[in-house]
Amino acid sequence: MRYELYYWAGIQGRGEFVRLALEEAEVEYVDVARGPGGESAMARLVGGEEVQQPAFAPPFLKAGELLIGQTANILLYLGAQHGLAPADEPGRLWTHQLQLTIADFVDEIHDTHHPIASSRYYEDQREEALARAADFVKSRAAKYLGYFERVLERNRAGAQHLVGAELTYPDLSLFQVVAGLRYAFPRAMTRLERQYPRVVALHGRVAEHPRIAAYLASERRIAFNRHGIFRHYPELDAGA
Amino acid sequence: MRYELYYWAGIQGRGEFVRLALEEAEVEYVDVARGPGGESAMARLVGGEEVQQPAFAPPFLKAGELLIGQTANILLYLGAQHGLAPADEPGRLWTHQLQLTIADFVDEIHDTHHPIASSRYYEDQREEALARAADFVKSRAAKYLGYFERVLERNRAGAQHLVGAELTYPDLSLFQVVAGLRYAFPRAMTRLERQYPRVVALHGRVAEHPRIAAYLASERRIAFNRHGIFRHYPELDAGA
Repeated sequence: MRYELYYWAGIQGRGEFVRLALEEAEVEYVDVARGPGGESAMARLVGGEEVQQPAFAPPFLKAGELLIGQTANILLYLGAQHGLAPADEPGRLWTHQLQLTIADFVDEIHDTHHPIASSRYYEDQREEALARAADFVKSRAAKYLGYFERVLERNRAGAQHLVGAELTYPDLSLFQVVAGLRYAFPRAMTRLERQYPRVVALHGRVAEHPRIAAYLASERRIAFNRHGIFRHYPELDAGA
Repeated sequence: MRYELYYWAGIQGRGEFVRLALEEAEVEYVDVARGPGGESAMARLVGGEEVQQPAFAPPFLKAGELLIGQTANILLYLGAQHGLAPADEPGRLWTHQLQLTIADFVDEIHDTHHPIASSRYYEDQREEALARAADFVKSRAAKYLGYFERVLERNRAGAQHLVGAELTYPDLSLFQVVAGLRYAFPRAMTRLERQYPRVVALHGRVAEHPRIAAYLASERRIAFNRHGIFRHYPELDAGA
């Protein structure tokens, strides 16, 4: 079976968390919206009258007859299918809990540049973004990064992974968050990173996983840009 | 086994989505933080050095040896244990997808009164809240409510439930969202509700479920107030 991923063509966005899992699982997939007619096909699956179980928004994944929406839900599915999560229930729930906490972190990162309305330009909410980003850099980023540092530290199988002794899907997602934060908030991250050595080391190890390294070096990896979740606006990047 | 729910004592908040599932499942549970010493016990489980798999924040549920965090993850677990979700994988994933979309909706509702920083008072971000709430009432609320209306309309088993022909955990959560929106945005909801008759009818049906009706009439149900997710500030409630 060839998976079909549906997500906006020009950005990493939330789709990137799914792409990383598909790449690490070494499965066949098409990034539909990046091909000809792909964005229309995606629009039909979101808005079409004939879709019985529509997704609220991209990303969603077509897996044979299944149409699965919500990033963390897609990863729950892929994790079980391709060994990117423990097989036992306690491990599966703990893995998913970490992913949902990463999803909350990602939502807060998005809102640093869009605190008022996703439908409006950054420039129209720049003042509010300055205030929200300042709070994010000052307290929220540290709260989340500190949490994942603790999780790594307390993992009885060692700080190499978030869950047990193997790579799981939240490891891939935490790699992506660190990469994105470095792009969006380079000054703040330089300062923050020193306090979270285990998180930083995890990022480095994931980047060197052979299949992930190959993906990152390929044209399939879209560059960070000012349309995605992680955006670099120097004025939001308080290094203090 | 007696479940232990850990959540802030004075508010419905995100814990309410779990309480509704526990009540409908008719299981034995303690709302720990509402008892003597409960908030300290909760703080120890969040911040304690000895907790190997800590939650980022309440709510979390102790189920025997398991400590499960993240609202949607707790519901994934309870849904499987107590027949509040389909047993087959496609049904289980679809149910969870709907819950994660409700979680996104709830995050946006929270941010109407706290668009800049959760750690600061509403009064310190009131101007920004006016702008964010206006966008919420004008476009986001309708987008989410319209989505759930479509899901109900397209359910092949009928519009009585979101998933199949039985009550599932997102039905309980959607009930709670409608109840909360009516409290927080009474003027806007009066106008909005007319467009989403299936969602409104679902709210009414869930409220009349015998176990839910008994819960709502009991002292266990905390009243809505200005400390929770759904807050009534008349100035944010644009009826236009």
